Amino acid sequence: MDKDNLSAVLHAKGDLRLEQRPIPEPGPNEVLLKMHSVGICGSDVHYWQHGRIGDFVLQKPMVLGHEAAGRVVQVGSSVTHLKPGDRVAIEPGVPREMDEFFKSGHYNLSPTVLFCATPPDDGNLSRYYKHNANFCYKLPDTLTFEEGALIEPLSVGIHACRRAGVTLGSSVLICGAGPIGLVSLLVAKAMGASQVVISDLSAERLAKAKELGADFLLPVKREDVPQEMARRVEGMLGGQPQISIECTGVESSIQTAIYATRSGGVVVLVGLGEEMTRAPLLNAAIREVDIRGVFRYCNTWPTAIAMLASKHINVKPLVTHRFMLEQAVEAFDTARQGLGIKVMLKCDKNDQKP
Amino acid sequence: MDKDNLSAVLHAKGDLRLEQRPIPEPGPNEVLLKMHSVGICGSDVHYWQHGRIGDFVLQKPMVLGHEAAGRVVQVGSSVTHLKPGDRVAIEPGVPREMDEFFKSGHYNLSPTVLFCATPPDDGNLSRYYKHNANFCYKLPDTLTFEEGALIEPLSVGIHACRRAGVTLGSSVLICGAGPIGLVSLLVAKAMGASQVVISDLSAERLAKAKELGADFLLPVKREDVPQEMARRVEGMLGGQPQISIECTGVESSIQTAIYATRSGGVVVLVGLGEEMTRAPLLNAAIREVDIRGVFRYCNTWPTAIAMLASKHINVKPLVTHRFMLEQAVEAFDTARQGLGIKVMLKCDKNDQKP
Amino acid sequence: MDKDNLSAVLHAKGDLRLEQRPIPEPGPNEVLLKMHSVGICGSDVHYWQHGRIGDFVLQKPMVLGHEAAGRVVQVGSSVTHLKPGDRVAIEPGVPREMDEFFKSGHYNLSPTVLFCATPPDDGNLSRYYKHNANFCYKLPDTLTFEEGALIEPLSVGIHACRRAGVTLGSSVLICGAGPIGLVSLLVAKAMGASQVVISDLSAERLAKAKELGADFLLPVKREDVPQEMARRVEGMLGGQPQISIECTGVESSIQTAIYATRSGGVVVLVGLGEEMTRAPLLNAAIREVDIRGVFRYCNTWPTAIAMLASKHINVKPLVTHRFMLEQAVEAFDTARQGLGIKVMLKCDKNDQKP
Amino acid sequence: MDKDNLSAVLHAKGDLRLEQRPIPEPGPNEVLLKMHSVGICGSDVHYWQHGRIGDFVLQKPMVLGHEAAGRVVQVGSSVTHLKPGDRVAIEPGVPREMDEFFKSGHYNLSPTVLFCATPPDDGNLSRYYKHNANFCYKLPDTLTFEEGALIEPLSVGIHACRRAGVTLGSSVLICGAGPIGLVSLLVAKAMGASQVVISDLSAERLAKAKELGADFLLPVKREDVPQEMARRVEGMLGGQPQISIECTGVESSIQTAIYATRSGGVVVLVGLGEEMTRAPLLNAAIREVDIRGVFRYCNTWPTAIAMLASKHINVKPLVTHRFMLEQAVEAFDTARQGLGIKVMLKCDKNDQKP
Ligand SMILES: NC(=O)c1ccc[n+]([C@@H]2O[C@H](COP(=O)([O-])OP(=O)(O)OC[C@H]3O[C@@H](n4cnc5c(N)ncnc54)[C@H](O)[C@@H]3O)[C@@H](O)[C@H]2O)c1
Ligand SMILES: NC(=O)c1ccc[n+]([C@@H]2O[C@H](COP(=O)([O-])OP(=O)(O)OC[C@H]3O[C@@H](n4cnc5c(N)ncnc54)[C@H](O)[C@@H]3O)[C@@H](O)[C@H]2O)c1
Ligand SMILES: NC(=O)c1ccc[n+]([C@@H]2O[C@H](COP(=O)([O-])OP(=O)(O)OC[C@H]3O[C@@H](n4cnc5c(N)ncnc54)[C@H](O)[C@@H]3O)[C@@H](O)[C@H]2O)c1
Ligand SMILES: NC(=O)c1ccc[n+]([C@@H]2O[C@H](COP(=O)([O-])OP(=O)(O)OC[C@H]3O[C@@H](n4cnc5c(N)ncnc54)[C@H](O)[C@@H]3O)[C@@H](O)[C@H]2O)c1
Ligand SMILES: [Zn+2]
Ligand SMILES: [Zn+2]
Ligand SMILES: [Zn+2]
Ligand SMILES: [Zn+2]
Repeated sequence: MDKDNLSAVLHAKGDLRLEQRPIPEPGPNEVLLKMHSVGICGSDVHYWQHGRIGDFVLQKPMVLGHEAAGRVVQVGSSVTHLKPGDRVAIEPGVPREMDEFFKSGHYNLSPTVLFCATPPDDGNLSRYYKHNANFCYKLPDTLTFEEGALIEPLSVGIHACRRAGVTLGSSVLICGAGPIGLVSLLVAKAMGASQVVISDLSAERLAKAKELGADFLLPVKREDVPQEMARRVEGMLGGQPQISIECTGVESSIQTAIYATRSGGVVVLVGLGEEMTRAPLLNAAIREVDIRGVFRYCNTWPTAIAMLASKHINVKPLVTHRFMLEQAVEAFDTARQGLGIKVMLKCDKNDQKP
Repeated sequence: MDKDNLSAVLHAKGDLRLEQRPIPEPGPNEVLLKMHSVGICGSDVHYWQHGRIGDFVLQKPMVLGHEAAGRVVQVGSSVTHLKPGDRVAIEPGVPREMDEFFKSGHYNLSPTVLFCATPPDDGNLSRYYKHNANFCYKLPDTLTFEEGALIEPLSVGIHACRRAGVTLGSSVLICGAGPIGLVSLLVAKAMGASQVVISDLSAERLAKAKELGADFLLPVKREDVPQEMARRVEGMLGGQPQISIECTGVESSIQTAIYATRSGGVVVLVGLGEEMTRAPLLNAAIREVDIRGVFRYCNTWPTAIAMLASKHINVKPLVTHRFMLEQAVEAFDTARQGLGIKVMLKCDKNDQKP
Repeated sequence: MDKDNLSAVLHAKGDLRLEQRPIPEPGPNEVLLKMHSVGICGSDVHYWQHGRIGDFVLQKPMVLGHEAAGRVVQVGSSVTHLKPGDRVAIEPGVPREMDEFFKSGHYNLSPTVLFCATPPDDGNLSRYYKHNANFCYKLPDTLTFEEGALIEPLSVGIHACRRAGVTLGSSVLICGAGPIGLVSLLVAKAMGASQVVISDLSAERLAKAKELGADFLLPVKREDVPQEMARRVEGMLGGQPQISIECTGVESSIQTAIYATRSGGVVVLVGLGEEMTRAPLLNAAIREVDIRGVFRYCNTWPTAIAMLASKHINVKPLVTHRFMLEQAVEAFDTARQGLGIKVMLKCDKNDQKP
Repeated sequence: MDKDNLSAVLHAKGDLRLEQRPIPEPGPNEVLLKMHSVGICGSDVHYWQHGRIGDFVLQKPMVLGHEAAGRVVQVGSSVTHLKPGDRVAIEPGVPREMDEFFKSGHYNLSPTVLFCATPPDDGNLSRYYKHNANFCYKLPDTLTFEEGALIEPLSVGIHACRRAGVTLGSSVLICGAGPIGLVSLLVAKAMGASQVVISDLSAERLAKAKELGADFLLPVKREDVPQEMARRVEGMLGGQPQISIECTGVESSIQTAIYATRSGGVVVLVGLGEEMTRAPLLNAAIREVDIRGVFRYCNTWPTAIAMLASKHINVKPLVTHRFMLEQAVEAFDTARQGLGIKVMLKCDKNDQKP
């Protein structure tokens, strides 16, 4: 068997190394995967740049990567729904305890969840990686590995749009046209939104949003005044949006989202910013504009696969750069500079197709 | 002003006459409309053929028609949101009392609701017709009058899919590919259904369903066994549908819908059949398959207009026949024979465009 | 007929006068009421002290009062469900337009709603008052007029607990033990909350809360630190509450509510404070703690009457002071000083029973 | 250690034996329990009398019993939340696979769930029994073992009332005053129902319902006509109930429940009857009366413990008979005759307190 398990390991802030790791042995409920495509997420870059995100601090070397798809090469003794050769997408968050959150279907909120590339848990930017088989989902032949890897960010968009209650005829404001804003746009449209306005500082990202189906573009400047932006949104749509999905984490953008949303509507907070936010909660309260957070996702992979397979959602245009695993540092640097949208790492030496 | 108010009046079972009626005077909250396009519904034909539907019995001559759009020619003294010249779609059900149903947003369930062409209330198959202004919705210039008229059947599909909880990635069985099954198909797709199977006795109607986006067609014969049909649905989809929308009212089809639906799923009863039904309620109960009825719709017109304007739903292919109001009897006969899908009556002598 | 229509009229900030007003004539959908009991609300006191609340500014003399019950003395021509002699509780907010909010059952959010004693609409602190008959609810003989008047603040508690999703076994934090915190306590218990902690600055109000069924009392000092208070709540309950109902409007208390609430839970904002609030929205977002506002209520009167009639909720202990209408200024001064909980004004010279 | 593991084993239809079984060894995620109190359920009696329930057929000897509480005597290697000495209530249904139902919080619907005393899985009518530790819930000192055992039937009532959406001010019809009807009554009241009507054939059971808080009693005779019964319910309540909870499984009672329920309301099917039911589905559909099944329960134990501990629900009066485990056959015969409500078996020779 193969011995090469080259892995992208973060040793400390700024110190990302490609090094060999032992190929892991799957436990009874696990599968060993030969990794194919792994996207780089803003959080991977953040760990690389800062060695931490909030209370999660790197304390020993950790493999990065959590947007991933690969092929099953070995299955644990209790695994019945997968077999060697199956192509799978990986859900990176796996609950460790059967607590109240898990039992009631909100396993993403379980405080002890394992999550790839969140300290202390390793990610999957490797040649080989083992994972709980119940959180690996078989890909139909019609989907590429890259589509499989993109299910992870897409899942954030699905969870956000579900939490928002997007449905037929919804009008939606999306703040921020980064990868997360863009997947939210794709999902909102597929769930029946009739009109989507999307905002960003960057004209390039807005152009990408247009290409992906945004109805209106709202260019923002840092000094723009939230209540004024809210009025511009209302003007564009001919009425306030029922839903705003905030994907920047920036305080002024959160304020815009609240002011912009129709009475009785919903603001979803996807973007993660500072610990404390100054926000017009009185305005939200007396207009019964609900404010709902999003923490990753749950129960999204089967939905995402169904939607990708049905061709109602097309995530392929999100991939703007590809690098071989050996070029991981270069790839991370590309992502860090915010060039393009999604940078993909190709982990299989013999198959670098999408 | 015009004096011609030719109207299609049902005098008794089988006795549909074209005759002049006085042009009505709008009350303070009403608008007078010059009718443009009115679709013929199965219920119109049923009143014509049988003089009654269930407990609703024709007792005096009644104008038929309730799928309608026209142009405002006069507004009542309290009307502010419409003005002469506006093109509107008409919601035919108008609550008469501010009862608990209306106050809580389910005005369709109000027992005293007025409904066009349900005895004793007149419909709108006339040159001129007055209606509560709050239940007339302005059409954008980009929509045709016929699209406006089709909002009525489309609303049944919207209400059915909302009651069903269709959302991203839903797999759906629709029983029956008549006008109501077909609008349910269009709406389910627009709400994110990944896969829709549709059944019918008629190959022609199934072909129309295919054209409108159905993923799988299930031809049915009267003697087919429900549990067997349920297995075929499961086979087609690779799993049971989460949702079944029953649009035939036929007992065996209701049984199929229950057996076919996944545990924890929903069967929506849109089709209206016999008073008593033999159904596998035990099977439904122990698998927690909910059974939910649909009675017309509420709060659907703004949604429908938004969806039609955004071009996410295209109802135009539903119109298969057009007749002038003067040819109403011929039009009704075409509808009675089940030829095509939707028969449109054109009420404006000077404008017979869609 | 009686000519005396003594009314408590606010002419300007600080200028509350008792003066005669003409007895109004009910319109077709209205009833004329002989007022019996009217509670004083914090907002009445606020208009008296400040002449405004936020954007609502007193611009001409306005009758105060909106927590009211009385007896029908005359009915408009279209009224069928009420007759002279009926004892009724008054819902003070009456939608003026049949807009999307009203049609979908959220008439409290309609921007043009009429609301008693909110400029420019008169309240009902008078001998006689007319009101839309659809917003007057017949009281069973077993309920007193004061119970009828208390349905208004009780409704805020009902709407808050509904928005919160209080249900069987909920554990709940209520911030503030003023009238609104106390009715929320009563309602939460009646909806199945197993444990309620209530906080306040005042030992007296906490004692009242204890009497009304609170399980735990949390005395607060202005300098207390929110995260520390949250830990104390968790300690008292042996776990974080699923629901927090904020009834003070104070920034630090809003922060406490967010930190205290369990992941996946709900914070309801009932208290109305400053326009901008500094709040730990990141903490709320990553734990999916929803923040939902409350603006008055809708569809609560029938529920409240059912609960009071069934004796499952007892609001009588809330009334701590009673004054005759003639003593309105003294009554307002008592309310202003925060003495007791609810001050009741008795408007009927001949019947001053509860 | 103790060697006595006397168990009530069903060998075949009618053949219930008390015999020794080896004391089981707990696996890593299991606990070994010394059983204290086990209630007899209608299904236990049914297996004894018929050797099967529907498709579940006894094929090898099986221990009966699934309403149980006991004390932890040994914990598996991975168990952290329980320790020897803990008193626990047992949730008898344990999902075996992490399938879509489990992941989304509906583990009761998982087709491969293990369930005590449903073939082929053993129940817990023994001296000793091992169970998945995640489905054992620690009882507070203030609760008796019998209250712990009664959480199982209480859970059916909780799940039924949740599925029904019982809330503040609900008016409710409960059909059948057996153990399940009675727990539904207790729960409905605790969730805020203002009025409950309960029906039964037996005057004795209705008397028990009265004692437990029913507002109205509806004696039924087998020949009663459903639509007539529905009218009597409406008469008693002064309006149709929003919710009906059917706890008999009898066809005519299901029909009564549908006719009786208010438009827009809910009928919950708890009672399990024949495979096919003749029911007025048209009436349900056009009044949008939803029909929802109940299959056992999920996520109810923590709620039940909180409610019992708070003394808001009192299940103690349900226990009408007690027998020692050695008297199991006599106990089953008592249950078979429908004497009293709940028959309790006491499994601990040294402690037969409640
Ligand atoms: N809640 C979760 O589970 C979750 C999961 C993934 C990502 N996130 C968060 O979502 C956010 C977006 O992620 P991403 O990968 O798309 O990040 P990104 O940085 O690539 O994109 C953010 C975009 O917002 C734009 N922006 C900045 N300020 C703005 C303003 N005032 N108005 C409008 N646009 C503005 C930027 O130009 C950028 O294009 C981040 O905060 C990330 O931490 C949250
Ligand atoms: N609930 C409501 O508010 C509402 C509103 C409108 C229509 N409806 C009802 O919806 C139903 C459909 O309306 P429509 O206008 O489309 O009627 P339609 O008669 O044109 O269509 C019904 C279709 O069902 C097919 N069909 C019959 N038996 C079948 C079977 N066993 N399996 C599969 N298909 C079968 C027929 O071939 C036909 O194409 C009718 O019962 C109508 O009364 C209800
Ligand atoms: N949203 C609505 O529709 C609506 C309706 C009615 C009232 N309100 C608002 O609800 C709030 C409560 O109304 P009320 O009539 O009970 O007012 P109130 O002033 O009588 O009661 C507020 C209570 O909060 C206590 N408090 C102050 N700071 C506190 C802190 N840091 N921690 C804990 N307790 C603290 C006070 O001691 C007082 O007892 C007010 O803000 C009012 O404007 C809102
Ligand atoms: N869905 C589930 O998960 C679940 C769980 C437990 C029990 N059950 C079912 O719930 C039902 C009730 O269980 P139980 O233990 O209380 O049974 P039970 O037999 O003790 O009680 C049923 C009661 O219904 C009464 N009844 C019979 N016909 C009636 C009629 N026409 N109208 C009114 N009352 C009538 C009987 O007199 C009896 O008191 C059974 O069908 C049982 O199988 C279902
Ligand atoms: Zn990520
Ligand atoms: Zn129709
Ligand atoms: Zn008030
Ligand atoms: Zn049982």
